[in-house]
Amino acid sequence: MADEAEKWKSSITKTAPNVIVTKGYRLDELLGNVSFAGIVYLALKGELPSKAEERMMDAILAASIDHGVNTPTALSARLVASGGVPLPSAVSAGLLAIGDAHGGAIEKCAKLLQEQVRKMRESESSVSDAAKVIVKDAKERKQRIPGYGHRVHTNDPRTVRLLALAEELGVAKEHVALAKGIQDSLGADGKPLPLNVDGAIAAIASDMGFDWKMGKGFFLIGRAAGLVAHVYEEQSRYKVMRHMAVAQCEYDGPEDRQLPEGRK
Amino acid sequence: MADEAEKWKSSITKTAPNVIVTKGYRLDELLGNVSFAGIVYLALKGELPSKAEERMMDAILAASIDHGVNTPTALSARLVASGGVPLPSAVSAGLLAIGDAHGGAIEKCAKLLQEQVRKMRESESSVSDAAKVIVKDAKERKQRIPGYGHRVHTNDPRTVRLLALAEELGVAKEHVALAKGIQDSLGADGKPLPLNVDGAIAAIASDMGFDWKMGKGFFLIGRAAGLVAHVYEEQSRYKVMRHMAVAQCEYDGPEDRQLPEGRK
Amino acid sequence: MADEAEKWKSSITKTAPNVIVTKGYRLDELLGNVSFAGIVYLALKGELPSKAEERMMDAILAASIDHGVNTPTALSARLVASGGVPLPSAVSAGLLAIGDAHGGAIEKCAKLLQEQVRKMRESESSVSDAAKVIVKDAKERKQRIPGYGHRVHTNDPRTVRLLALAEELGVAKEHVALAKGIQDSLGADGKPLPLNVDGAIAAIASDMGFDWKMGKGFFLIGRAAGLVAHVYEEQSRYKVMRHMAVAQCEYDGPEDRQLPEGRK
Amino acid sequence: MADEAEKWKSSITKTAPNVIVTKGYRLDELLGNVSFAGIVYLALKGELPSKAEERMMDAILAASIDHGVNTPTALSARLVASGGVPLPSAVSAGLLAIGDAHGGAIEKCAKLLQEQVRKMRESESSVSDAAKVIVKDAKERKQRIPGYGHRVHTNDPRTVRLLALAEELGVAKEHVALAKGIQDSLGADGKPLPLNVDGAIAAIASDMGFDWKMGKGFFLIGRAAGLVAHVYEEQSRYKVMRHMAVAQCEYDGPEDRQLPEGRK
Repeated sequence: MADEAEKWKSSITKTAPNVIVTKGYRLDELLGNVSFAGIVYLALKGELPSKAEERMMDAILAASIDHGVNTPTALSARLVASGGVPLPSAVSAGLLAIGDAHGGAIEKCAKLLQEQVRKMRESESSVSDAAKVIVKDAKERKQRIPGYGHRVHTNDPRTVRLLALAEELGVAKEHVALAKGIQDSLGADGKPLPLNVDGAIAAIASDMGFDWKMGKGFFLIGRAAGLVAHVYEEQSRYKVMRHMAVAQCEYDGPEDRQLPEGRK
Repeated sequence: MADEAEKWKSSITKTAPNVIVTKGYRLDELLGNVSFAGIVYLALKGELPSKAEERMMDAILAASIDHGVNTPTALSARLVASGGVPLPSAVSAGLLAIGDAHGGAIEKCAKLLQEQVRKMRESESSVSDAAKVIVKDAKERKQRIPGYGHRVHTNDPRTVRLLALAEELGVAKEHVALAKGIQDSLGADGKPLPLNVDGAIAAIASDMGFDWKMGKGFFLIGRAAGLVAHVYEEQSRYKVMRHMAVAQCEYDGPEDRQLPEGRK
Repeated sequence: MADEAEKWKSSITKTAPNVIVTKGYRLDELLGNVSFAGIVYLALKGELPSKAEERMMDAILAASIDHGVNTPTALSARLVASGGVPLPSAVSAGLLAIGDAHGGAIEKCAKLLQEQVRKMRESESSVSDAAKVIVKDAKERKQRIPGYGHRVHTNDPRTVRLLALAEELGVAKEHVALAKGIQDSLGADGKPLPLNVDGAIAAIASDMGFDWKMGKGFFLIGRAAGLVAHVYEEQSRYKVMRHMAVAQCEYDGPEDRQLPEGRK
Repeated sequence: MADEAEKWKSSITKTAPNVIVTKGYRLDELLGNVSFAGIVYLALKGELPSKAEERMMDAILAASIDHGVNTPTALSARLVASGGVPLPSAVSAGLLAIGDAHGGAIEKCAKLLQEQVRKMRESESSVSDAAKVIVKDAKERKQRIPGYGHRVHTNDPRTVRLLALAEELGVAKEHVALAKGIQDSLGADGKPLPLNVDGAIAAIASDMGFDWKMGKGFFLIGRAAGLVAHVYEEQSRYKVMRHMAVAQCEYDGPEDRQLPEGRK
């Protein structure tokens, strides 16, 4: 007999012969009436989004699709593809590169914003004051605030667009306000360190009520699509086992040596 | 010097400081104006979809999001999550279950349809005649036609809905027609074996001009979203290392035996 | 031109036409003269092990090979195999379950032991005193000490054997002594909480001078072999898409409901 | 009630409180008495190897450990590591590159050798005659014979050593003989195309009675160890998100263009 601990309970989808129901709604009724992004929102949060939230979620997922071949996700997916493997193997390998340093700032920034907005409410302090404290505190501890700065962009076009949409759609609230406040405080010394796309997603998703623990998930869903495109491109344009990056590889280990006596 | 073979050329996304361009369009302009599904279509095919194609692509991706916990993708993702790993590790493990037997029929059915529609055009035969030949041929070789029949559904609600949408949106053409023709032929003996969701996606994607080699990709993009929901649910509802499926595990190997002399 | 940051430097293996050199030794000379475990030690530490260290490393890797089908690694590998995928996809999926809750205690226990042995040396305190402080401290903070206790075994046969070998081979030193001391302190209240296999590997690997950050690596190398056996068994004994665990799956989400007006 | 189809039967390892039994032998008795390679052989074949087979298996696994950073396995593992992920994620991503073009020749060559040795026995033809037919047949069909030729080595030191060990240990039989015969036939035109390491492993494993379907497994077990070394090296020597291969990345997609009217 299977005891309770062994049960696989799930609240996401009910399947029975000729019936598939997601969070209470028939999937066949959802298809065509609610968009992919809207159904993703439903699966993650349990309730249908408003039209505004649906459009916002759509833009968040789309912002993550691709950032060129020069990313750990795309490069590793293409290298793995060059081993002559099925598409899902290569895409999965690429997704495994989503970590603390690649997409991980969404989670960390959302955690910070959610904690600080809670504090802000409790202490009834202003966004501007709260932001100043956060920045001062980070500087004293010599810690970077997650979600600010980018290795390529000084003014990430995705950030600009997502924030504009969040305002336009009425989705932006306290978390976005605090994220902008922190940006202002960070730049008060004349050296701007703008909100990056991870930070923008973190702030907006927090304003839509998502748990910060889902942070990497938004990035992953979008990026899965971009990686399908990269792997397909690699497999259709190139031969397997390309002599990749040969010129960049260099051995710098011990010089040649002999096995000691008694080992041969 | 890096020779040509080592270059990482890609036609998908151009990135430069403060500029991200996907297939020629600025990503920040795409966001909010073209849906996630539309940008996925753009990344995969190189051109923007029509509004009808965009809605169709959206429904295809959404149809694949989830089919309950009792699938190799969801169960393995949740088991891996129970090891106490980051969300992307568990989602990737689940996606690795997409194979010949799980989602793989999209690819195989699309290949068949694309080859047979080509033949049909060359020989100027009717859909009905072509379908009869395909079914007769498969029966003689005792082979299943990929994309027909389902372990749970006799009339998959996703298939019904996707085909209705494809007609409504004017996307359905010869590949859908042939897929339906094969279904009719298969059921001519009174034992219906209906087009399943893999077959429906295969036929519609073929009518939208997608290479059959992308087949598993459509399923993967949608399923990535469902797996994010499953892994999040597992991690937020359950403790790690649940005593899963203990009652079902059974050792049936050799009886206890002693190491031979000379081995101790 | 490739700048320094882009170089792929590695000290592990040098390859040139007809030459493969690992940490300075010709691989063809190593083969047959130094065992697999010995070459793994060489690759990880940079120097050849003594014969005693080589045997110890061999036993550590072997202890991790398999623990039956009822583990997140084996179950998920077999579920993924049932999707009809190549062997490496299924094995990789299983390995992804190695995390904080599954094999992760090696890393955490080794970190603790390495830090505490350093302190012990500095303060010139005895093993027994150091152990008491560690246990008292953990109890006050209501934290579990990683590497002690097991969900199945009260006296793990792998632990017993590995510790006996470590003594016999002269590999056991301060870290093993401290690990045993902690075990004694934990059981001083009459409720034994013995060192588990993760803890035993942690202590012995620490005594052999390995960085605690490699902790999951030892388990992974051994388990990769066990998963090859599981995936091969699954693929050769069973059909794909088995109706696994159906009885254990249960939907407990929202009741059936209608799409709101304006959504159809 | 769990029906038969849902059972997780396995013949590999029996676990019960304080007992772990692999293929009938107590794991604690195996540790230290039978080597890692010997227990892997036991887990895969069900019986203990002879001492000669044990040494041969050890060399096969060790031959696969690493081939430098310039391989799809090592490069992708290191790229994934640079995303800031746990060691098992990066190692798994590397293993996913094991495919038809990377390690896959073991499986294909073993299949060929096992089929051809069976035929050879039935037809009572000589190794030399059988080899000639195989090579002639491949040339006529313009197909490469898997397991011959290498992108770097003309005389792979691993092949030379493994074959010498197989002879010395008395493990080499008909499959090795046929593999060498094919090499002779391939080179009869003055252009040698020597057996590579995949081919050598294929021939020897076949002579030890392993199913060709396990082919990728031998490579995977060894490579898992090499990847642990690479990922550890990457994580301890380098910062995350290195600017890898920037100089080699190049966009060659459509020129910048405007969104069409009706899309803004």
